[in-house]
Amino acid sequence: MIKVGILGASGYTGAEILRLLATHPEVEVASVSRQAGGEKLTDLFPSLRGHFDLELIAHDPMAMAGSCEMVFCCMPHKASMDMVPALLDGGAKVVDLSADFRFDDAAIYEEWYTKHTAPQLLKDAVYGLPELYRKKIKTARLVGNPGCYPTGAILAVAPLLKKPIIDTDTIIIDSKSGVTGAGAKPTEITHFVSVNEDIRAYGVASHRHTPEIEDQSSKLAGKNLQVSFTPHLAPMDRGILSTAYAKLAKKVSTAELIELYREFYKGERFVRILPEGELPRTKWVRGSNYADIGVVADSRTGRVVAISAIDNLVKGAGGQAIQNMNIMMGIPEETGIDAPPLHP
Amino acid sequence: MIKVGILGASGYTGAEILRLLATHPEVEVASVSRQAGGEKLTDLFPSLRGHFDLELIAHDPMAMAGSCEMVFCCMPHKASMDMVPALLDGGAKVVDLSADFRFDDAAIYEEWYTKHTAPQLLKDAVYGLPELYRKKIKTARLVGNPGCYPTGAILAVAPLLKKPIIDTDTIIIDSKSGVTGAGAKPTEITHFVSVNEDIRAYGVASHRHTPEIEDQSSKLAGKNLQVSFTPHLAPMDRGILSTAYAKLAKKVSTAELIELYREFYKGERFVRILPEGELPRTKWVRGSNYADIGVVADSRTGRVVAISAIDNLVKGAGGQAIQNMNIMMGIPEETGIDAPPLHP
Amino acid sequence: MIKVGILGASGYTGAEILRLLATHPEVEVASVSRQAGGEKLTDLFPSLRGHFDLELIAHDPMAMAGSCEMVFCCMPHKASMDMVPALLDGGAKVVDLSADFRFDDAAIYEEWYTKHTAPQLLKDAVYGLPELYRKKIKTARLVGNPGCYPTGAILAVAPLLKKPIIDTDTIIIDSKSGVTGAGAKPTEITHFVSVNEDIRAYGVASHRHTPEIEDQSSKLAGKNLQVSFTPHLAPMDRGILSTAYAKLAKKVSTAELIELYREFYKGERFVRILPEGELPRTKWVRGSNYADIGVVADSRTGRVVAISAIDNLVKGAGGQAIQNMNIMMGIPEETGIDAPPLHP
Amino acid sequence: MIKVGILGASGYTGAEILRLLATHPEVEVASVSRQAGGEKLTDLFPSLRGHFDLELIAHDPMAMAGSCEMVFCCMPHKASMDMVPALLDGGAKVVDLSADFRFDDAAIYEEWYTKHTAPQLLKDAVYGLPELYRKKIKTARLVGNPGCYPTGAILAVAPLLKKPIIDTDTIIIDSKSGVTGAGAKPTEITHFVSVNEDIRAYGVASHRHTPEIEDQSSKLAGKNLQVSFTPHLAPMDRGILSTAYAKLAKKVSTAELIELYREFYKGERFVRILPEGELPRTKWVRGSNYADIGVVADSRTGRVVAISAIDNLVKGAGGQAIQNMNIMMGIPEETGIDAPPLHP
Repeated sequence: MIKVGILGASGYTGAEILRLLATHPEVEVASVSRQAGGEKLTDLFPSLRGHFDLELIAHDPMAMAGSCEMVFCCMPHKASMDMVPALLDGGAKVVDLSADFRFDDAAIYEEWYTKHTAPQLLKDAVYGLPELYRKKIKTARLVGNPGCYPTGAILAVAPLLKKPIIDTDTIIIDSKSGVTGAGAKPTEITHFVSVNEDIRAYGVASHRHTPEIEDQSSKLAGKNLQVSFTPHLAPMDRGILSTAYAKLAKKVSTAELIELYREFYKGERFVRILPEGELPRTKWVRGSNYADIGVVADSRTGRVVAISAIDNLVKGAGGQAIQNMNIMMGIPEETGIDAPPLHP
Repeated sequence: MIKVGILGASGYTGAEILRLLATHPEVEVASVSRQAGGEKLTDLFPSLRGHFDLELIAHDPMAMAGSCEMVFCCMPHKASMDMVPALLDGGAKVVDLSADFRFDDAAIYEEWYTKHTAPQLLKDAVYGLPELYRKKIKTARLVGNPGCYPTGAILAVAPLLKKPIIDTDTIIIDSKSGVTGAGAKPTEITHFVSVNEDIRAYGVASHRHTPEIEDQSSKLAGKNLQVSFTPHLAPMDRGILSTAYAKLAKKVSTAELIELYREFYKGERFVRILPEGELPRTKWVRGSNYADIGVVADSRTGRVVAISAIDNLVKGAGGQAIQNMNIMMGIPEETGIDAPPLHP
Repeated sequence: MIKVGILGASGYTGAEILRLLATHPEVEVASVSRQAGGEKLTDLFPSLRGHFDLELIAHDPMAMAGSCEMVFCCMPHKASMDMVPALLDGGAKVVDLSADFRFDDAAIYEEWYTKHTAPQLLKDAVYGLPELYRKKIKTARLVGNPGCYPTGAILAVAPLLKKPIIDTDTIIIDSKSGVTGAGAKPTEITHFVSVNEDIRAYGVASHRHTPEIEDQSSKLAGKNLQVSFTPHLAPMDRGILSTAYAKLAKKVSTAELIELYREFYKGERFVRILPEGELPRTKWVRGSNYADIGVVADSRTGRVVAISAIDNLVKGAGGQAIQNMNIMMGIPEETGIDAPPLHP
Repeated sequence: MIKVGILGASGYTGAEILRLLATHPEVEVASVSRQAGGEKLTDLFPSLRGHFDLELIAHDPMAMAGSCEMVFCCMPHKASMDMVPALLDGGAKVVDLSADFRFDDAAIYEEWYTKHTAPQLLKDAVYGLPELYRKKIKTARLVGNPGCYPTGAILAVAPLLKKPIIDTDTIIIDSKSGVTGAGAKPTEITHFVSVNEDIRAYGVASHRHTPEIEDQSSKLAGKNLQVSFTPHLAPMDRGILSTAYAKLAKKVSTAELIELYREFYKGERFVRILPEGELPRTKWVRGSNYADIGVVADSRTGRVVAISAIDNLVKGAGGQAIQNMNIMMGIPEETGIDAPPLHP
């Protein structure tokens, strides 16, 4: 059994990793931490009663690394890079779920976030999107787990970027997210009465997931590109639907695009390319690690519309983190994350 | 009191017109029809008990025109153009809520819908968007009430089209609608368990509101243009949020764009341009005839993002229909539709 | 025009009174207050843009009474009784929406709430349920507006209490409320992700609306009685459905019970007794001042089940407050609150 | 691997059994049927893509029994009793999810449902509530899986019935269910716009789950008793919250009641008795086989309030069916149904 720790277990991401690890056959959750610590884990998450008998401890990366081979760091950005070095020094492998280790170029990070305090780790940190970086993840000590929006967005456009099939200056990504993406903290924005029966855009032209999408898209295209990215808040718990638009550089049919996607994601356990005539729905992936993708060629306007659906807490956070852990620990990639979506 | 009839009163659009007319001080609802007729109106719509004492009659446009000065035709497309001529012949003024009288060019209609059976009426029918066609509406006998998506989309982009401020080949409109837009008929798509906790795109590259948006946008721009339009179904009753993207043809700031919009919609009672830093929310217009619009210049990508929020049943259907009626009957435009949104 | 003030306008109740007064033909909102004051009212409530041009002032009951004939006091309990005396001294009539003036017996209040600091006002304060106390309200200077749950519960059982038709020791009221009832403050309980897809009971055997229901029920029955009251939080914005159970003291049919209710509420504009075979739904009253009531005799078990639906913010708060104001000011009772429900 | 068939796999119950069996380590789903048959199972349930490669066949109980050791019969009542005899004759063990085999007394069934066509099977059929009938289930060939409401209701009151602690004539059960309980068929009742933002009672004094609750309660109490049962439809997908009331026959504290429940359900893997101060929430059990129960003594009114939360599709249908199968097949009871709830 792999001994696993969760640094910062009180948010939605921590809760989701715990939910998934509860039935992971190769893992024992050995340590969970929270600001002050002291509570029983199941008092914090009553839904998990019967699954864990753990007390939350105060954050102590060194101690956690001492008792755990693998640590999921679920701290907010900045707090993360203050603790990850100690986790690595203590000998643990780390999947970090903040933005702190998603960029190999500290300059991009610093432009959108803040001063980076552990830039020496960036060259070895691997971007944890297994569909693109599986081989590097296998030997990584530190994985920067992708953001929820970038996971959906990058998977939706990746096959279009490897080939000269679109005009890479024309990418627009319009995403719709459930409220878990806004975090567990009660705010005016997350109040039920604020969200229910409402949909709205936010962070227009300024959301921090933009550079992450651009950085990975640029790597795929082999040249620097920019995207317009607009997130929206939808009245639901989970799920991100990303609708991506780009100008086609040549005439292709929907069937050819689907074939291109199927080829690109061949053998990928967690990417499902939908048949022509079907489009992804967030509920078809809810609670699962799947990314469902549909693609349509609009011959009238000469554009492609590629749409992906993920569960932001699973493929967009905790599930992908476990997928990365499985790869890093040499166990079958789908272990513990192979349950079908909760549907209906 | 103006005597008003509603031809086809059993759907959401009819229900909404009735809700609004219940407190309209200048109107008496004199006649309502449905397929077979015979039921009490308030048995069909128990929420309206105490407001109407009417029985539904079978469709009979001639008879309805005989007893009503103004008729709202709420039939589906095709059925509408079969009945509107009789309404007009009978002497009634008509606001038609189907697609049948929204195009002056029958060819466009026939490409996306079906053979037009009353093309002779098209040259006199007026497109019922008061913010663009108020003067013509004033003297019209027949108004083609805009579609719900087109209302939100056109209001969002109109100010950008009158001036050479964007590249008109780059318009993309990504809309999110509540479920009332899908109609009152129970289907797999409108089942609660299908919609709840789900968001999905539909009609990609093929939705029938596309030509309507294009036709009006082309008229505004003074040249033929095409748009990409993608509707989405969101888990809420009412509301359409339309997020419009276009490439800027020159450098402008967000403040300048807002000023442009304020100027364009100066004096418009039902269009509210939001201050910089705020973005529209469907809940801020729910149940009201408002269109809220926010606009952002993304200097990084050189794009403009214009976002509108409407209630699809009010400004997107019944409220706008009453606004048109008010104009046609020479009464103050806001009469009966000036209540604030239902918020919270 | 009646000059009206709202003391404590920043919560849901204040917002709802403003929404309704925006189109009230006899009222001018002259003053609105909030803790510190200083904001524009429409920055606080963007949905109201175009309807008010007011700035919030700091609480100052004396000043407000000076400029307003009628004040709606929307402060929390305790804060309310500290300010109402000054409002009355200043010459204003007052509808108080807290619990502070709902009991004529200070002892009941003090058992469930806190020490009463203005007990001298209790004997003249009138319980603001017009269907029971219209005559007294007409001449009242101070009205204690009923709680949301008590409004629905009392209206549901009142006709059963006036006659010896039930065993008054057996009343159980099981209520389900939308989230606006929990207030505008963001808390763990009101977080979207907490409420959505969840239903739960709270305050079992201890909710503060219990004594209010009991006090009024006892007055109706002419003897002291106790009820079991259990509130539940349902995933919706507005609405309270109250399902009341009691043992029948004699054999009656559903038709007879309906007749009893119709008789009891004869002439009441805002109470709708549903026909046999129909049961109330919160959506059929949403946004309106109606209380819909359905009643069923269960001959098998010898119990009556009486069910009421109200909008907690309208008939359960702001709408009823305006109804009381209308009565107190001698204008038609339905003025400004006669719009039908927002349905669909 | 146990070969399993699902007769009538196209509804929510079939879908849920498939979702759970997808990761059940001891089961192979060998056959699934639907009216006409012919579709790919994953075209019917796209969320299950990647998990099954089966085609639906037309109903053929004999053939299914030939290829499967265990069959879940998910037909509606009446259809079920027409097919179950053939399944048993064919040698399969059967868990039937309709009402047809839940009563040992055909007379009760026939009073609330219809003529029973296989009454000879009733004496051997076992009521599939493992917490009450585990021993009999172990050797049963035919299990009548409990209804969703009865599961929650009976678990909530069972400990009160075994001891002379309540007045058994005073039981009232007020239940609130999500929409999956109303079935997958699109109807006016299940239309999103009908359910959303609404709560309502239905089947007052007449719901068919009433006799099932009474029959089991009577068996527990050792005497015939009647209950008032009122189901409500709440705007959510899954979950039933049952709030049960009864008059206490003697003075007990909440702590004593909790102790009584803990004792009664000692060792039960899927029943969680909540600590004092906590009450069940449907979201804390969503997607899981748990029944969470909270109990409160109301010393003021002398009543007990016992509340249970289950997921109607899991513990209330498919999960409990698999629990029964596990017991019948001699494998550990929690196999395949031990995943924690989907929370948040």
